[in-house]
Amino acid sequence: MTTDIYSLETLRRQVLGATREIIRQIGIRQSIVKEIALEKKRQGLPLIDRAAEARLRSDIINKCKHHGVSEGIVLRILNNLIEHAINAQSSVMDERPLSPARMNTIAKKLEMDGQQVIHLEIGEPDFGPPTKVKTTASRSIAGGASHYCHEAGIHSLREALAQHIGTSHAREVESDEVLVTLGARGAIWLSLMSALRPGDEVLLIGPSYPPYGSCIRALGGKPTFIETHAHNEWQLDVDIIEEAMNESTSLLVLNTPSNPTGHVLTRDEMQDIVAVTQERGVSVISDEVYSDFSIVPHTSILEFPGSESDYISSMSKSFGMTGFRIGYVVSSRERIKRMAQLQGMMVTCVPEFIQIAAREALSCIDERLSYKRLMKERVLASYKLLSRSKFNVGEPQSSFYLFPRIDTTIMNGDTFVMKLLERGICVTPGSAYGKRYVDHIRIAMTQPIDTIAQAINIMDEVVG
Amino acid sequence: MTTDIYSLETLRRQVLGATREIIRQIGIRQSIVKEIALEKKRQGLPLIDRAAEARLRSDIINKCKHHGVSEGIVLRILNNLIEHAINAQSSVMDERPLSPARMNTIAKKLEMDGQQVIHLEIGEPDFGPPTKVKTTASRSIAGGASHYCHEAGIHSLREALAQHIGTSHAREVESDEVLVTLGARGAIWLSLMSALRPGDEVLLIGPSYPPYGSCIRALGGKPTFIETHAHNEWQLDVDIIEEAMNESTSLLVLNTPSNPTGHVLTRDEMQDIVAVTQERGVSVISDEVYSDFSIVPHTSILEFPGSESDYISSMSKSFGMTGFRIGYVVSSRERIKRMAQLQGMMVTCVPEFIQIAAREALSCIDERLSYKRLMKERVLASYKLLSRSKFNVGEPQSSFYLFPRIDTTIMNGDTFVMKLLERGICVTPGSAYGKRYVDHIRIAMTQPIDTIAQAINIMDEVVG
Repeated sequence: MTTDIYSLETLRRQVLGATREIIRQIGIRQSIVKEIALEKKRQGLPLIDRAAEARLRSDIINKCKHHGVSEGIVLRILNNLIEHAINAQSSVMDERPLSPARMNTIAKKLEMDGQQVIHLEIGEPDFGPPTKVKTTASRSIAGGASHYCHEAGIHSLREALAQHIGTSHAREVESDEVLVTLGARGAIWLSLMSALRPGDEVLLIGPSYPPYGSCIRALGGKPTFIETHAHNEWQLDVDIIEEAMNESTSLLVLNTPSNPTGHVLTRDEMQDIVAVTQERGVSVISDEVYSDFSIVPHTSILEFPGSESDYISSMSKSFGMTGFRIGYVVSSRERIKRMAQLQGMMVTCVPEFIQIAAREALSCIDERLSYKRLMKERVLASYKLLSRSKFNVGEPQSSFYLFPRIDTTIMNGDTFVMKLLERGICVTPGSAYGKRYVDHIRIAMTQPIDTIAQAINIMDEVVG
Repeated sequence: MTTDIYSLETLRRQVLGATREIIRQIGIRQSIVKEIALEKKRQGLPLIDRAAEARLRSDIINKCKHHGVSEGIVLRILNNLIEHAINAQSSVMDERPLSPARMNTIAKKLEMDGQQVIHLEIGEPDFGPPTKVKTTASRSIAGGASHYCHEAGIHSLREALAQHIGTSHAREVESDEVLVTLGARGAIWLSLMSALRPGDEVLLIGPSYPPYGSCIRALGGKPTFIETHAHNEWQLDVDIIEEAMNESTSLLVLNTPSNPTGHVLTRDEMQDIVAVTQERGVSVISDEVYSDFSIVPHTSILEFPGSESDYISSMSKSFGMTGFRIGYVVSSRERIKRMAQLQGMMVTCVPEFIQIAAREALSCIDERLSYKRLMKERVLASYKLLSRSKFNVGEPQSSFYLFPRIDTTIMNGDTFVMKLLERGICVTPGSAYGKRYVDHIRIAMTQPIDTIAQAINIMDEVVG
């Protein structure tokens, strides 16, 4: 017995010794890091050096193998040390660009002061949900369909979605490969949360829908932006994607059609992206919320069954159901189960009667088509008007948004947007989608053509 | 210039050297830890040794001072090392105890096979929402109240909640100190997410509502359970709370009345808890979802305005609105803003028409009182029946659940619950609230008295 206790005590002393040594090395490391920061400041170099970080990370991964330590824990600790993961949440808080929601809040304040505002900032169509959706929701509430329900969604909606997706994308989908979420944002959050480990890198295509970056940072991940440009018609170069990948890259997020540019990835581009991600063991999240509004042929990630991917969509845009908060993910059974468990943990379930209404919406084929037609008419008319204006815009590939460029020698996008708001027109500055896009603005096709035309006229006046 | 570059390169090499040494020491440490685990197994000792952990922690804090390293980062790394925080998400996934939701799923499968089941597992009352809530929801949907809305909740509901809470707890609350969430789970998640850094410790009172532990682990935090016991009438010893606190303890979660025990903290206990948490700089999350169902006098954390706390409640139980998913948090303006931003990021907003219905619910005072009366009648009648049964149960302090004990020389709770289900009665095993509580079961007072009486009869038969 005494030898037993003795051996345990000896081991404990050894743990203490190793732990102390770790602390001592952390102390040494931190003091060198401080010196580096000072030196960089002196030389006028930027504080963050991606290449140096990447070198360190890959060296460390090798060393982990050498010492038989699991990479996961070490990368996590490394991230603690390079302060990426630390205060991840507070960094989310710090960046509050002029997002559509913030523009909306500012505009509403003006309205309270009596000013009239034309809202083209938020991606919320004016048409609202089909009548049948409203009556079904009401009937379900009256009938008492407000129970706790399955964390992955009610069976009948998952089944209906599987069929709907299968028909739309020529791919057989089973109901247990579908997760019902709280809008596409809910889907994006769950998809990222279930896939990311702190310290993982995620490739995003800029300009980029802001929640991707925020969610990744909140999860202790690191977003890396691959920028695309108007002068290049927002084309995505697969070689650049490949170059941007490193050992800690775990995900690539696609958004086709893109919010805010409206760009649609071609079949060839999708094919190449799938090939390179498969080769490099990187998973794909493909947000295809606007696929119904594609004008050019749209290719879904679902058409590549071999790819390890989460397909994300929602009922908000296609069925005018923004405030109902219904989105969905298609993925492997295992991933859907994992995401469902996380959703259950965080919110129990999506309200039952809303799911019943969503199932009804899927049968509203005429409304879906007419919404699609309406948005296309609007975007083509707006494009025509903008082509004759002082703004620069490419031919639209999808119909929900236009992302024209301003001559920044006159003024930048943020300034323009605030001046435009004084004239009663609310749009979103391009800076909301990345600082590089400050010479753009996003116009949502969410008002009748005449109203948008009126807005474009005033835009031209404001730009001088 | 060359010397500049040279000096930066030298420093970088030193960082790399220190980082490698950290990894090497982690490798050494982990192999000793493995040996300790083996040795403990051999000696039949428990794997977790709180005292040893505490000694290590206090030694490390001293060493931090010595090496000029910030304690915060080291304690977090230390927590990572002692493998509590590691694989947070996968551990959430692994532990799937027989939760109420899982029991419900199992029971529903039996029902599909034709068996009749009395559901006493889920905390969902049979009464449903007041009629006025249903009609208001329907009217709002018909009227088009399905827009994107403010991430913190619609103004009128926040105002109505502020008044409702103010009246209930004799504390003035402003609308911007209130956040509308997706049920209490949504509130718990946001409260924890906005407060916790990875590696932080959170004190929980056992037996404990499972999402606390799961959410904490998913956020990379470490739940530490302070156990309370039936033989002691679930009393909470403030000295034990204080003893359990260490330098990385950032939060204490209270749940009064408790799910599952029904225990209500006295004013004196609350006072002492507030005092010790304030002294130690620990924040409090107080989940008071069942406060309407307290039989003994209930004291809210809101009655201690000086305490740094998040108050959490929901409309699910008090207004029979489980499936509507409406909860709320009361906290400082700054924390509410932070949580709202996170909520916006993750789900955009809570559905607008549901919020309008919730506002209406707050005026349904008669229904609220009658639900409260009904639950009290049920629990008192059930208590009387159980007192005469083979189960051991204390006098209820609140009315939503009973948490009786089984004589485990006959069978443990998990076995009992599954045998009981074969007889068509579904309850939740105590093990769902912590392994220590395997000799308990939780009965929800969600059915008419006669039904519960019938269930208790069968319980007595099953226990033999």
